[in-house]
Amino acid sequence: MGQWQQTEGAESEQPRWAGFGEPEGAVAERPPLRIGMVGYAFMGAAHSQGWRTVGRVFDLPLRPVLAAICGRDAAAVHAAADRHGWATAETDWRDLVARDDIDLVDICTPGDTHAEIALAALAAGKHVLCEKPLANTVEEAEAMAEAAATAHERGLSAMVGFNYRRVPAAAFARRMVAEGRLGTLRHVRVTYLQDWLVDPSFPLTWRLRRERAGSGSLGDLGAHIIDLAQHLAGEPLAGVSALTETFVRERPLAGGVTGGLSAVSAAGTGAVTVDDAAVFTGRFASGALASFEATRYATGRKNALRIELNGERGSLAFDLERLNELSYHDGTEPGTHAGFRRILVTEPDHPYLDAWWPPGHGLGYEHTFVHQARDLVHAIAAGRTPEPSFADGLQVQRVLAAVEDSARKNSLYTPIAV
Amino acid sequence: MGQWQQTEGAESEQPRWAGFGEPEGAVAERPPLRIGMVGYAFMGAAHSQGWRTVGRVFDLPLRPVLAAICGRDAAAVHAAADRHGWATAETDWRDLVARDDIDLVDICTPGDTHAEIALAALAAGKHVLCEKPLANTVEEAEAMAEAAATAHERGLSAMVGFNYRRVPAAAFARRMVAEGRLGTLRHVRVTYLQDWLVDPSFPLTWRLRRERAGSGSLGDLGAHIIDLAQHLAGEPLAGVSALTETFVRERPLAGGVTGGLSAVSAAGTGAVTVDDAAVFTGRFASGALASFEATRYATGRKNALRIELNGERGSLAFDLERLNELSYHDGTEPGTHAGFRRILVTEPDHPYLDAWWPPGHGLGYEHTFVHQARDLVHAIAAGRTPEPSFADGLQVQRVLAAVEDSARKNSLYTPIAV
Amino acid sequence: MGQWQQTEGAESEQPRWAGFGEPEGAVAERPPLRIGMVGYAFMGAAHSQGWRTVGRVFDLPLRPVLAAICGRDAAAVHAAADRHGWATAETDWRDLVARDDIDLVDICTPGDTHAEIALAALAAGKHVLCEKPLANTVEEAEAMAEAAATAHERGLSAMVGFNYRRVPAAAFARRMVAEGRLGTLRHVRVTYLQDWLVDPSFPLTWRLRRERAGSGSLGDLGAHIIDLAQHLAGEPLAGVSALTETFVRERPLAGGVTGGLSAVSAAGTGAVTVDDAAVFTGRFASGALASFEATRYATGRKNALRIELNGERGSLAFDLERLNELSYHDGTEPGTHAGFRRILVTEPDHPYLDAWWPPGHGLGYEHTFVHQARDLVHAIAAGRTPEPSFADGLQVQRVLAAVEDSARKNSLYTPIAV
Amino acid sequence: MGQWQQTEGAESEQPRWAGFGEPEGAVAERPPLRIGMVGYAFMGAAHSQGWRTVGRVFDLPLRPVLAAICGRDAAAVHAAADRHGWATAETDWRDLVARDDIDLVDICTPGDTHAEIALAALAAGKHVLCEKPLANTVEEAEAMAEAAATAHERGLSAMVGFNYRRVPAAAFARRMVAEGRLGTLRHVRVTYLQDWLVDPSFPLTWRLRRERAGSGSLGDLGAHIIDLAQHLAGEPLAGVSALTETFVRERPLAGGVTGGLSAVSAAGTGAVTVDDAAVFTGRFASGALASFEATRYATGRKNALRIELNGERGSLAFDLERLNELSYHDGTEPGTHAGFRRILVTEPDHPYLDAWWPPGHGLGYEHTFVHQARDLVHAIAAGRTPEPSFADGLQVQRVLAAVEDSARKNSLYTPIAV
Repeated sequence: MGQWQQTEGAESEQPRWAGFGEPEGAVAERPPLRIGMVGYAFMGAAHSQGWRTVGRVFDLPLRPVLAAICGRDAAAVHAAADRHGWATAETDWRDLVARDDIDLVDICTPGDTHAEIALAALAAGKHVLCEKPLANTVEEAEAMAEAAATAHERGLSAMVGFNYRRVPAAAFARRMVAEGRLGTLRHVRVTYLQDWLVDPSFPLTWRLRRERAGSGSLGDLGAHIIDLAQHLAGEPLAGVSALTETFVRERPLAGGVTGGLSAVSAAGTGAVTVDDAAVFTGRFASGALASFEATRYATGRKNALRIELNGERGSLAFDLERLNELSYHDGTEPGTHAGFRRILVTEPDHPYLDAWWPPGHGLGYEHTFVHQARDLVHAIAAGRTPEPSFADGLQVQRVLAAVEDSARKNSLYTPIAV
Repeated sequence: MGQWQQTEGAESEQPRWAGFGEPEGAVAERPPLRIGMVGYAFMGAAHSQGWRTVGRVFDLPLRPVLAAICGRDAAAVHAAADRHGWATAETDWRDLVARDDIDLVDICTPGDTHAEIALAALAAGKHVLCEKPLANTVEEAEAMAEAAATAHERGLSAMVGFNYRRVPAAAFARRMVAEGRLGTLRHVRVTYLQDWLVDPSFPLTWRLRRERAGSGSLGDLGAHIIDLAQHLAGEPLAGVSALTETFVRERPLAGGVTGGLSAVSAAGTGAVTVDDAAVFTGRFASGALASFEATRYATGRKNALRIELNGERGSLAFDLERLNELSYHDGTEPGTHAGFRRILVTEPDHPYLDAWWPPGHGLGYEHTFVHQARDLVHAIAAGRTPEPSFADGLQVQRVLAAVEDSARKNSLYTPIAV
Repeated sequence: MGQWQQTEGAESEQPRWAGFGEPEGAVAERPPLRIGMVGYAFMGAAHSQGWRTVGRVFDLPLRPVLAAICGRDAAAVHAAADRHGWATAETDWRDLVARDDIDLVDICTPGDTHAEIALAALAAGKHVLCEKPLANTVEEAEAMAEAAATAHERGLSAMVGFNYRRVPAAAFARRMVAEGRLGTLRHVRVTYLQDWLVDPSFPLTWRLRRERAGSGSLGDLGAHIIDLAQHLAGEPLAGVSALTETFVRERPLAGGVTGGLSAVSAAGTGAVTVDDAAVFTGRFASGALASFEATRYATGRKNALRIELNGERGSLAFDLERLNELSYHDGTEPGTHAGFRRILVTEPDHPYLDAWWPPGHGLGYEHTFVHQARDLVHAIAAGRTPEPSFADGLQVQRVLAAVEDSARKNSLYTPIAV
Repeated sequence: MGQWQQTEGAESEQPRWAGFGEPEGAVAERPPLRIGMVGYAFMGAAHSQGWRTVGRVFDLPLRPVLAAICGRDAAAVHAAADRHGWATAETDWRDLVARDDIDLVDICTPGDTHAEIALAALAAGKHVLCEKPLANTVEEAEAMAEAAATAHERGLSAMVGFNYRRVPAAAFARRMVAEGRLGTLRHVRVTYLQDWLVDPSFPLTWRLRRERAGSGSLGDLGAHIIDLAQHLAGEPLAGVSALTETFVRERPLAGGVTGGLSAVSAAGTGAVTVDDAAVFTGRFASGALASFEATRYATGRKNALRIELNGERGSLAFDLERLNELSYHDGTEPGTHAGFRRILVTEPDHPYLDAWWPPGHGLGYEHTFVHQARDLVHAIAAGRTPEPSFADGLQVQRVLAAVEDSARKNSLYTPIAV
């Protein structure tokens, strides 16, 4: 549980967004941080934009260099290198990890490869940024967290990519909770609603196969909201009770995207082997009640990560579809004048915002990757364990496992292992 | 389960809001329906306004007459009669029930008295309108549903007061679901959030004592959302998994309001013996997943009954704090042009609206009682079983019992008895 | 201009919504206030509901009695009396005014008859409530204001029915402005958007003919927003610059509704002789800038009376389509935590709300007529000039005249006569 | 008026966002477009981010190269070059324009220098991107538009930076209007509300002095909304009637920012010589009515560029503070089911979106500069006149002049020169 209290303490003493002093000298002269990124799909594009931009917007102690990108398809990875501006390309991540001109390995591959790459990278003396969820199993995540702890003694930093902590409104919400503005927490309700699987003719992809993705909406969406809920609450979940469901159990195959999938039926369809949706309730360590929902079947909801926290003194609400806004109710005001206020989180004193545009000129989704890169670079330069750490990622993995466990046991309330 | 299908069938053939033909002759000459109401607090005031208004706005086959109001405190009940316009007052509900100039008994008392009064009224040949929840136990509710079924053979109507079905936006949502606009249902998520117990110094009232209220937020708020969710979905819940919590277990006593409460501590506080909040998940008969939350601790939320239904073809969302609006997403439209639309449910072709004001001139909370009275009067005149019937009320009671059962059994998934 | 300062002073010393002490004795025993209402269409129904309800909800010094309703069509007016609960019916307003068992004449007819009826009623010693706009011309309004001032010396009260002042959120906004929460006012922007004329085949009605309605959207919608803007600002407009437009100049005739209209074309269409829309800007006495728009062509907007006031210390915004809400920005808070808050104006300490339902249980359009009746009854009992007075109505008429004047003069800035 | 029809025609035949075919070969091998940017403040940072990103996200026929940045302060401009990634720095724009390794001059300076730099750049054979407003006077703008037309014959492109046309929601709104979804236009209402001058102690800056900025909120904010309104409407304004105001006429001087300002008072304050706010109405060529407001005194509004268009068949509404959303009302649907729908403009088929993230993963303010760069590069490669052209910028300048003219003439309706 230590990481929660560290988070809280760290933030109340020295906010992450408060800046760390201006580095001396020109950007071009700062020591380089040479990035090697594995994977070049959606997350690869987002991380590329993050690394390319961060040093132009924030004052950093190190200068990120897009040194190498890695993927199995040589033509595709060279095209990605050209497109996204990476200096070189590799086709085997082992070669990337072996290069001594790489300082940080950024893992943007599906979950089944995270553990192997991350362990090798740490062993090779690289800092690591690993996409979420940290791994496909608790066992993998335990090994990764242990390796990260050991590597930290050798000055290495390892971070898991729960990028939504870096939405300015979410970071500001965390600050407000840490300041005590909500008081004793009573309720946390979170949904992450998408709708891209509503159509039964949408084809089978690796994200719908357990052997690649680990789980379905749970690992993809649920991992985000579990991390965010615990981060904002400043405390871990103590236990959960869950229902999961796979609404559409067979889907048509789509040539390109199903490479490597087994279990193809004669009819040209394949089995969906992960959950389509998960609903679960839980208790936080403090006794607050929680309600979670992750689904890809919420028709009309595109990216509706919504979280509301109710405390004895106030409430906060956030919706990722309106990511520049935070809704805040100050319960200590007279009832006649109180109400949920829409804070445009675009003021220079809001987290990360002093580096960007004037008030009201909003940011977008990709900025979370810029901010993630910023915070990681600072942590590396300072020799600190970044947040969320691999230990944080392991804890989320344990919650995911408890959710699946509860779902298997007829929703029985299942404590989270510590 | 029969009542669900009846509801659906009835609505697709002859919508409840479609009117029943114009009665002949003047309002003043229509046969009277003489009401005797028991209870004169919040619900009594709301029902009075409903009965007083309904015949002035809607064309009814019977003319409601505010004949008698009943309460134990003679001075108070006479003042209420004078204030609300009831012709006479009684101090014992048995006397009211015994009067042969009363046609309908309207029960607005706490839940522990519902069964006794309703059974007596039906036995005495009166129609009955009973506030929700129908009873404090499944056993009471079973007796009431059975009595209502028997009484129906004698031409008597019995209705339970789930008034939120009569918000025009909710009635219109039901119509849209019945038309198939959502297709196969995937998700239902419902909250009923209030905040009047957030302050630990708020005093103990009868609503916080099990022997009077039956349960806490569960029976008060949860009953509403269980009924509304099942009504809108057009199908019953199959099972639930629940967590309940009492955050503040001792509260100060307030002289007036705690009359009749036992178990007062020396310190002038008394024990809260009901739940403060309940979160539960469930499955509908069709396999759709459900998520429920009822609480009186959601700081800043005053009356946030919010429901969203996601189906394969579309979605609907409703918020009681904006009761003149319904949010609808048509999933069959091209993605570029689709979006949740805010329908102002104030058009003449919307349920109940042809009797009211021009488009955009919204209605309020109390109109649900006018509409409830309207529909009950029509059912009585037509000799039909009104909806929601006592059987519907019993079914909700069974869900409430399953929720409490699951909460006692470590959230184990608990099927709903049929 | 005196009325503005009176308004402001009165409110800061003794808020209109603060109650006036509880009357002694039972409702049934209070002195009657016998109402005679002229007109029984939309406004007649709304006023009936107001008069019928007010004494059941509010503690009043007088007991409103629905004594007589008046209209030219004998069958229709008797049906309206029966439907709305009026004791008697008259077919000539002169007979109504002549009756000595009528204390108050409530004028719900088109604008071309207001002056004649009101002057006669005041001369006959009746209190008067007159629908807005007060009259069709400044001259008529001047005569009415003068008659009201004279009649006041004889103990008579005359009020003009700008009912939107009585939306609780609007009354609360006025209270906040009077408390100085906005500081020096900089901007007022107001729209009143409806869309019922968008379809060119919508028929010609009396509202589209100058000889009956006086003007079009300007008098109907513009009068409301001019009154509300000045009321909330607490100061009068100093001048305006205006554009008006009639988009559809010929419309089909509809048998029933066009009775009495001349200038029917051979083709069965008739000329629209009023404005369809008006946009105008202006300056308030203090120098604040104003922007107004009234239209019946705003597709999709049903009743969008929206007003926003920006002052040096804060801002307020209101939308009649969400009439239970007030949006407030407190400009004195730190920028990071400031934002427009949505106040649900349903707390017991909000204007008029102590008589109604618990927090979050919203009111509707018709409640404005209940509140208007309440305030008028109190003014009558206290011998006070009610607000808005006929003098207020005259001032609005002068603004309307200046708008039309400016529109005729190529939008030249036109001072408001005092 | 020709440019409006071109715009409309061009869009209906070949949408700007429809792509132009994939360029052959690697990004790194495409012909360079060497940019020289003048100015490095707010706009300089935004344009830098645009140029840096555009070739990494969109497929472009040319490869933008950040060749040179120019500013008068040598230390500052070198720091900006280092920070933003420009290869070289210049301290005199004449030197920049004289360089033959520069293909495009991007002008991000205050308005008083636009004309001189742009004319020189075009004369020197450079493409030009010029920040808005195009110039400080109509005369300057005329010269610039003429020079651009002449230069176009030599294959040069000149664009004015009305970047808000490139918000995907705005581009999509334009597409919908061009498709005829609104039908005959009746109303356009636009505001651009900010609040950074509310505090009278905010210091005097160059933006508050006529000799530098040309005008105040009118040129800064008003220019944006005039361009956007005309662009979305697809037609020009025919005339305007205006009020302008300077609420705070003296402001304290702030050392750094006021360099070059004259007219400093003894008290250390200086005169504000531009408008603080402007409200104006107008008529479009088609007869639709318009309402505009630009202000820096709307407490709590940070960047509230809001536009609504009402047509006979539908309506559109947009708010820059929620820039990923477009509100659309389809007036051809049945009234019961119609309502303003919130379209999340983040689908791959929305303008510009195929290059970015999955649905629901929103963009921010700076993306408008990426899109602007994209469209300009395509226009240059194709030898087309980009939109908005200098002719478009001149037309906006004429509207701004008419607004000031009308304000000086007591709001007299003032036709726009063609």
